[in-house]
Amino acid sequence: MKLAELGEFGLIDRIKANVAASPSVLLGIGDDAAALSPTPGQVTLITSDMLLEGVHFDLSFCDPFTLGKKSLSVNLSDVAAMGARPRHFLLGVALPKDVPLEFMDGFMAGMLEQAGRYGATLVGGDTCASKGGLAISVTALGEQRPELVLKRSGARPGDLICVTGTVGDAAAGLKQLFAGVRDGFLVARQLDPTPRVETGVALAEAGVVTAMIDVSDGVLQDLGHICEMSGAGARLELARLPLSEHYLAYCGHNDHAPLALWERGGGEGAATGKLPPGHDPFALALSGGEDYELLFCIPAGKESEVAAICASVNLPVSVIGEITAGTGVQLTAPDGSSYTPPRRGFDHFGAD
Amino acid sequence: MKLAELGEFGLIDRIKANVAASPSVLLGIGDDAAALSPTPGQVTLITSDMLLEGVHFDLSFCDPFTLGKKSLSVNLSDVAAMGARPRHFLLGVALPKDVPLEFMDGFMAGMLEQAGRYGATLVGGDTCASKGGLAISVTALGEQRPELVLKRSGARPGDLICVTGTVGDAAAGLKQLFAGVRDGFLVARQLDPTPRVETGVALAEAGVVTAMIDVSDGVLQDLGHICEMSGAGARLELARLPLSEHYLAYCGHNDHAPLALWERGGGEGAATGKLPPGHDPFALALSGGEDYELLFCIPAGKESEVAAICASVNLPVSVIGEITAGTGVQLTAPDGSSYTPPRRGFDHFGAD
Repeated sequence: MKLAELGEFGLIDRIKANVAASPSVLLGIGDDAAALSPTPGQVTLITSDMLLEGVHFDLSFCDPFTLGKKSLSVNLSDVAAMGARPRHFLLGVALPKDVPLEFMDGFMAGMLEQAGRYGATLVGGDTCASKGGLAISVTALGEQRPELVLKRSGARPGDLICVTGTVGDAAAGLKQLFAGVRDGFLVARQLDPTPRVETGVALAEAGVVTAMIDVSDGVLQDLGHICEMSGAGARLELARLPLSEHYLAYCGHNDHAPLALWERGGGEGAATGKLPPGHDPFALALSGGEDYELLFCIPAGKESEVAAICASVNLPVSVIGEITAGTGVQLTAPDGSSYTPPRRGFDHFGAD
Repeated sequence: MKLAELGEFGLIDRIKANVAASPSVLLGIGDDAAALSPTPGQVTLITSDMLLEGVHFDLSFCDPFTLGKKSLSVNLSDVAAMGARPRHFLLGVALPKDVPLEFMDGFMAGMLEQAGRYGATLVGGDTCASKGGLAISVTALGEQRPELVLKRSGARPGDLICVTGTVGDAAAGLKQLFAGVRDGFLVARQLDPTPRVETGVALAEAGVVTAMIDVSDGVLQDLGHICEMSGAGARLELARLPLSEHYLAYCGHNDHAPLALWERGGGEGAATGKLPPGHDPFALALSGGEDYELLFCIPAGKESEVAAICASVNLPVSVIGEITAGTGVQLTAPDGSSYTPPRRGFDHFGAD
């Protein structure tokens, strides 16, 4: 069945039928606007992301279910990075007319399953026809007590820089997808990222975090955002970057020992700050976006408390550096030398 | 200057510099999410619309300033149709890489001027590159006391159906644009609609309205939404449809007397319910969308109160029919016969 047979309002009704009621939603899908009842004493956190076919996703790389799931996950990740609980979301979708109804059914199933997992209710949005590719816009809302909201701007010199999980996986997964690989750990990290909602909320409620961001543009660029907003600098120790065994294997480090490889293969690189191409496990881990891990700062001495919080949600956490009184992010290679990355991160309007 | 030279984050900084602070915005542009402080005792109304180049707008028809203004106006209109005051909005924009910076400057100037006029503050969003055309997504938030929110679902048999301003103008303006006309009243109604914010709020606060919607899909379809959501029917009297003199002139009714023309030219049409093509002033007024007038229902006897409210904001209002106990919308031609429209309204996935 094609969407043209169902029609715009038929599609909206079909979506609406699968959305559960929520006490905070006074009026959901089907009016000019949704009416939401804010929780007294809490602030509303709101974020919006667009995902465009050919820019953010390739339909030959993923099934509709996973695309729907990811489209919500990247927005939930932004809510989590504020230390807030997701509550509601809106979906805008521009669909080519020849999209089969099954595509939308799969897309919505993935999105609504993920929404249910994290307590977010679909309350409205927009559906329209696209003359180009598929375009998706998600707006997510969360709530938190104002004093617990975690901004990018609170980092202070001496704070430790932490990151959850591992980094570089999603970027490596994207490279694998372009090379024809369609499954495995790295590909799953790219296509189906996990928003760190429980962790973000637990960290906020523990009151130990001074600044937080999610890793969407790459560790280096996202840490740069924290530094800029906090009026501080940072020193990052590459040896402490959490890299998955899959990522290391992808980089050719089958012994899972980047430090050994650095020492073995990086004689020239150690001097220039650049390892030979294909042998540097840090470049992609620093610049690669879309891991959707949490990057955050804590006062020195709070490591064990943070480790306990992350352990309680079964998520590894690593201290990777320190906030400094300077500006910009300084990188220290495993041998103690200064490291210059080949690229810093993703800019949508950049040349490459 | 091209966007590529400024970069994604340079563009965000440039936009941010033109946004005024607001007491309800604890955290605006530049973090993972915005933090908004809801007004105690009020509910949040939220709506989102996408506008795509080639579907919703044609860059050869309008300047960037007017496009930015309209992109916000259509969302403010949805907030107004709930009887709510606009408060905040988010902007997602996907830009072709060759868009000149001047385009974005003009677009933002129009959007922010309109935002200021209606008390809405830009709090966040997303900018990214587009490989297709320009894509815009706006999410608007408003507030109102819960008991004053105006839904589509409250119309009761016997209620009078009212509409502000005139209808059909925007659809006629679009036809003129396609015919090469670039200015005039009708074109302005299409490119630069006025969201009826003051009127929507005043009607809500007067407590006289049982159901409301904005005319975005056309009077017939939008009235159909009220009927469907209210479990009622409607009878619309075409002779009472408010048509502007510009609209009537466009339809070939230079004497501004549609009824006279109906009687003069519609001998055959009156019998079949169809006037000869090009002579029916009602078809486009019923099916044409984007007038962004308010269509609402009031209990019988409240006409003068509503007329006074609309007069206080200098907006004409017309009673155009009555809610019935049936289903669907029945149309009565000026001669009392039943009228069948050639098309009902706009469906994004429809064949035409």
